[in-house]
Amino acid sequence: MTLLRSVTDPRWTAVAVAGLPATLADHAHCEKKAAASALKLVADHPDHPELVRALAKLAQEELSHLLAVLAEMARLGVAPTPDEGDPYAQALLRHVRSGAPSLVDRLLVSALIEARSCERLLLLAEALPDARLRELYARLARSEGGHERLFVDLAVSVGGAAARVRLDALAEEEARIVAGLPIVARIH
Amino acid sequence: MTLLRSVTDPRWTAVAVAGLPATLADHAHCEKKAAASALKLVADHPDHPELVRALAKLAQEELSHLLAVLAEMARLGVAPTPDEGDPYAQALLRHVRSGAPSLVDRLLVSALIEARSCERLLLLAEALPDARLRELYARLARSEGGHERLFVDLAVSVGGAAARVRLDALAEEEARIVAGLPIVARIH
Repeated sequence: MTLLRSVTDPRWTAVAVAGLPATLADHAHCEKKAAASALKLVADHPDHPELVRALAKLAQEELSHLLAVLAEMARLGVAPTPDEGDPYAQALLRHVRSGAPSLVDRLLVSALIEARSCERLLLLAEALPDARLRELYARLARSEGGHERLFVDLAVSVGGAAARVRLDALAEEEARIVAGLPIVARIH
Repeated sequence: MTLLRSVTDPRWTAVAVAGLPATLADHAHCEKKAAASALKLVADHPDHPELVRALAKLAQEELSHLLAVLAEMARLGVAPTPDEGDPYAQALLRHVRSGAPSLVDRLLVSALIEARSCERLLLLAEALPDARLRELYARLARSEGGHERLFVDLAVSVGGAAARVRLDALAEEEARIVAGLPIVARIH
């Protein structure tokens, strides 16, 4: 399953591999922000116990990913960088409606970010010269694919069939946003 | 080891046990906020790789505690409540200095919150009528005690001997703040 309406520009993989230190440092920020975003949903919705449980577990997994990426950075002598923000996620989050539909939209935006991450981590898993990193990225891509499904399931359980209609619209936006981004050594 | 300059008012334990549903719901919020606060330190200090690693692991542990507390709440039919904020932690955080000393202060405040949590979870572990909860609280108290030591070690590694002097001052404040709080069915 993928929710994506576009495939990543084939030039991205070579750029991300050539700029591996920057790609890894950005990836660490992505995992950290995925955990923080899941925790924010947990904090904002104590009245949804299923969501709280699922996203607390997801945040734990994102933190293991963060630790795994940091361990590889240390092994390869890659220094962390300041987090410059993520124009891709920010652009997507601008489509989150306020009020009642915001929870469904936040879940769907999270699903799309996981879907794009899954696609790109798989591209890295196939292209990286380092066998350990290839293995790590294949494992992380599988996990992000699972998160993608979880976020869609949660959105549908909160928003019903309308969530699937909204997902179509947001997936179109996601493809448009990705097409407008520069091709640089970062995950998105 | 405990950093605390006061022991909890002996009346607190009976109140917290008598109001167990409220105490459990508040405890879930405490674990969630401990994870979020650790992640905020991770986000703010990517230039401290040791701190980032240690606090990403700590956030994972706080999330396991959250999940364990939520599981007990579900077992006992306790509904989650909205998070009304934590006057204790907010009062302590007002002592965090701005600028360069803020990292040391945030770590020391976290150490003190863990220390107070450790003390009170142990009191619950001894007083709760439910055997499963007693076992859980004894285990969580040990873990919070470990976090207390970790935060002090991190503060000293960042701030040197001055961090210990600052800890003395903040521990005095913590005791003053606790003495001024009402005795209610919550962790702090």
